[in-house]
Amino acid sequence: MSDKRIKALIFDVFGTVVDWRSSIIREGEALAARKGLDVDWATFADGWRALYDPAMARIRDGEREFVKLDVLHRENLIEMFERTGIEGLSKEEIDEFNYAWHRLEPWPDAVAGLTRLKSKFIIGTQSNGNIALMVNMAKRAGLPWDVILGAEVVGHYKPVPAAYTEACDRLGLPPGQVLMTAAHNGDLLAARSCGLCTAFVSRPTEYGLDQTKDVRAEYDFDYIADDFGQLADQLRC
Amino acid sequence: MSDKRIKALIFDVFGTVVDWRSSIIREGEALAARKGLDVDWATFADGWRALYDPAMARIRDGEREFVKLDVLHRENLIEMFERTGIEGLSKEEIDEFNYAWHRLEPWPDAVAGLTRLKSKFIIGTQSNGNIALMVNMAKRAGLPWDVILGAEVVGHYKPVPAAYTEACDRLGLPPGQVLMTAAHNGDLLAARSCGLCTAFVSRPTEYGLDQTKDVRAEYDFDYIADDFGQLADQLRC
Repeated sequence: MSDKRIKALIFDVFGTVVDWRSSIIREGEALAARKGLDVDWATFADGWRALYDPAMARIRDGEREFVKLDVLHRENLIEMFERTGIEGLSKEEIDEFNYAWHRLEPWPDAVAGLTRLKSKFIIGTQSNGNIALMVNMAKRAGLPWDVILGAEVVGHYKPVPAAYTEACDRLGLPPGQVLMTAAHNGDLLAARSCGLCTAFVSRPTEYGLDQTKDVRAEYDFDYIADDFGQLADQLRC
Repeated sequence: MSDKRIKALIFDVFGTVVDWRSSIIREGEALAARKGLDVDWATFADGWRALYDPAMARIRDGEREFVKLDVLHRENLIEMFERTGIEGLSKEEIDEFNYAWHRLEPWPDAVAGLTRLKSKFIIGTQSNGNIALMVNMAKRAGLPWDVILGAEVVGHYKPVPAAYTEACDRLGLPPGQVLMTAAHNGDLLAARSCGLCTAFVSRPTEYGLDQTKDVRAEYDFDYIADDFGQLADQLRC
């Protein structure tokens, strides 16, 4: 396909740009060392992440007013602490661990790939993460975004259609000039149904070595790549 | 004063970061050359800009729903075309000229100064300009923002207090950790009344050589500088 129509690339972030699971495990192990805790942090990370979608679903379904993801992450963290018997942390310690999501590490190809893509296109986040989370993450990791979009800017959590169409509106671009990039088939299907172009980038160990979902592109997306460098090649950056 | 409390700098853009007046005159002269128009573009630029605040005031006062600045600029452009007897432009030509605001040139010290400030702080726009305007301007001029905030993100036009307090909320920072930077005394007074730190950067020719307003800081702001380089010196970047 021609890429001449594409003006901007917008990105899913958790899993697509950053390796949330390894980062949360690492942060958990550091907390455990400081506090003398005995926890299986891989199970903890998976459990914390599993509470993410149901929490957003209540907002998507109109059962709850929009709140930023930091708030949902913290509520879910309290739930995980209760489940795993972790107690005695101060409010400051809980906040600090909740902000582990602001300190996620990028996949090894992310910074170099984004830098190449930025040379030719507007690049922005279209994550369910809130603005401060995205800005702090980018600042720490060197992610060179032109713009932070996403749930807190558009007022909708993916995958509702308005999350994608409002992001295009904010860029002043028709959906056909915007390329949604993600490691998740469902995110891209939702974007495609709104008229956006789509790029699947494989992250087959996002959920660890036994991952079964989203290991590969399951649909005929406009671009399919193994990493951001390969996507930059395909887009001739 | 100590600058240790400051985590983020947010910036007024029109006049503070970019020289809107010279840029609009330049774009007008280019349009005139193409279309054979005879117009005093300095007067035109001043007139177009003078319609800006009254248009926002209707939204600030609740007489009109929020619309992005591109919309207000275009309505005001039509008014200016009528006043100056310019006619016969196509819809595309009008849109293209309206987007002159997306192509404003930075002051000579802006990119280098922002790059220094970015090495130590989060830097973001807190302009009344909409997201696409800010992103396109930054992309063209090389302005290295970490985040685009401003009216379209927070839903309020400066100088209403919510414009400043909501911007701090989006950054997850208390107002006292955010430094509002502007070339306009009124913008900084409004920010200061919300608890933000303030930096005045002089742009004594923003309105041309005969400028009388905002030539210098009229209040005891936290920082007062002649350009972004001097501000970076003061903040030890």
